[in-house]
Amino acid sequence: MENLKFIANKLYILDQTLLPNEEKWVEIQNKEQAYTAIKTLMVRGAPAIGIFAGYSMALFSKNKDIYELKKYLDSSRPTAVNLSWATKRIVNAFENGKSLIEEAVEIHNEDIKMCRKISEYGLSLLKDGDGILTHCNAGELATSKYGTGLGPLILGKEKGYNFHVFSDETRPLLQGARLTSYELEKAGIDVTLICDNMASLVMKKGMINAVLVGCDRVAANGDTANKIGTSGVAVLAKYYNIPFYVLGPYSTIDFSCKTGDDIEIEERSGEEIKQMYFEKPTALKNTKCFNPAFDVTDNSLITAIITDKGIIYPPFDVNLKKILND
Amino acid sequence: MENLKFIANKLYILDQTLLPNEEKWVEIQNKEQAYTAIKTLMVRGAPAIGIFAGYSMALFSKNKDIYELKKYLDSSRPTAVNLSWATKRIVNAFENGKSLIEEAVEIHNEDIKMCRKISEYGLSLLKDGDGILTHCNAGELATSKYGTGLGPLILGKEKGYNFHVFSDETRPLLQGARLTSYELEKAGIDVTLICDNMASLVMKKGMINAVLVGCDRVAANGDTANKIGTSGVAVLAKYYNIPFYVLGPYSTIDFSCKTGDDIEIEERSGEEIKQMYFEKPTALKNTKCFNPAFDVTDNSLITAIITDKGIIYPPFDVNLKKILND
Repeated sequence: MENLKFIANKLYILDQTLLPNEEKWVEIQNKEQAYTAIKTLMVRGAPAIGIFAGYSMALFSKNKDIYELKKYLDSSRPTAVNLSWATKRIVNAFENGKSLIEEAVEIHNEDIKMCRKISEYGLSLLKDGDGILTHCNAGELATSKYGTGLGPLILGKEKGYNFHVFSDETRPLLQGARLTSYELEKAGIDVTLICDNMASLVMKKGMINAVLVGCDRVAANGDTANKIGTSGVAVLAKYYNIPFYVLGPYSTIDFSCKTGDDIEIEERSGEEIKQMYFEKPTALKNTKCFNPAFDVTDNSLITAIITDKGIIYPPFDVNLKKILND
Repeated sequence: MENLKFIANKLYILDQTLLPNEEKWVEIQNKEQAYTAIKTLMVRGAPAIGIFAGYSMALFSKNKDIYELKKYLDSSRPTAVNLSWATKRIVNAFENGKSLIEEAVEIHNEDIKMCRKISEYGLSLLKDGDGILTHCNAGELATSKYGTGLGPLILGKEKGYNFHVFSDETRPLLQGARLTSYELEKAGIDVTLICDNMASLVMKKGMINAVLVGCDRVAANGDTANKIGTSGVAVLAKYYNIPFYVLGPYSTIDFSCKTGDDIEIEERSGEEIKQMYFEKPTALKNTKCFNPAFDVTDNSLITAIITDKGIIYPPFDVNLKKILND
């Protein structure tokens, strides 16, 4: 399940806003299209955004314009740490006189290796037949291959594991329905779609052995920003004594953020809640909406953070740094 | 915000399936129309169904046909307890030679008094300026006046309180968006619509001082069946130390259910999750869905149950019965 192709110096993405009803590939021909593709979620998922931004920087920067281009693309989605990380790498390559395209391809290949490692570490914590709850989409559509949050499930499928996955539909943008249930179904994994508010019931019924989610930014103390609703799932998992695993590249840890309070949360249009996707508006025109795109899960709710550098357990403020120094 | 009018011996209802996009009043002229109105959720909410069924019985029964009419209307939504309770009252009036219309009006007036008492008790627990979270719809559209879960807010508005209400949209049928945000907006109450999965964030941000919800059935130990997602909100409220109040008529307590385990949970079609209301399906045709309509909130998560007979605190197994005996 690929979301991006770089062929003969041309960049194509699968327009994820049209899934699951249409599989449409779009060529990205300039920086404005690149900006819009990120902003409007045609490409989404922190690692996928990073890979896409890398290619976009390499293709659309013209010498010293590269600094402005970096700023421009970085502003398309402020919460995604991979975005500015990837654009910085291309800037570094530029400053060191390296090939920007080669650097972009390198970012892409590193992500594949990284996801594979995350998936292997994650899979080591699961057993055949487990019921798994996931929120949003942290699979192959959000990364390069395997995914982060879904990586252990997709790798597990390859190795003959049978998981029973419950996918939160993930309002308002329905990534769990449109993307996760879609890509797991396509991968032949047993998946059941539920509304976000049903997570408590399936946990209470004993149908869930572990929760797997991705992450957009992890603070130095382990507080984790991820898709809105993640913190609620984590509170439920704690209450029902179910392990709650955050999966992501080690680079998602932002040591410049001491705690989750330092993480800026993107707020999006209320139209996404009451109008988008629907046949008719679900509320009155003048009804206020509050639409934060992410929330921060307190480190005390997280059983382990699974990275390409290993599985990290609490206390996170000590152990996240420890791996950095190892 | 009325949902039913009885004027000059004619019965009119507001078609709630069209809200919030259209306010259409429909005259109900025969028993077939009455049946369809309940069946298709043009009228919904346990107390409102009871009131409507009372008038329908009084208007459309012809002497001994009344027994058949009761059976017919009862079958429109077999799980709604208030429905068969109200039709039984009209049958009793018939058997005792009383006016059926007067009995229907009496059912209606009793509900107004009951809701008013629940609202007064509920309001006594709140203070001006409070942030309130609610789930689903337990307001005037679901009852006669004021409502149960929303009653304290509507009564409070009359008395000059300013609440800041957050309404969970309540997937999959969106009663929180379509009905609650609509009726609070119309009542001039400050309301903000959020997705169900945003409750954790608004609680964490300190925006919520109390949670108010209605109830469909309360077991003898206080375990409470209500709209799917209620139990998750209750877990969150406990975690964030926010009082969680259940509001409903004392008659909602079913002493024949010892605990929530005795309450059967209705499972509905998966099409409600992935197709209904949407312009395009949100998932593939063959993707499985799990769509329980209710969940059970453990009594340990409930701060108090607010009824027309008073505010009941834990231990519920003792105190719910105590009021019965008082």
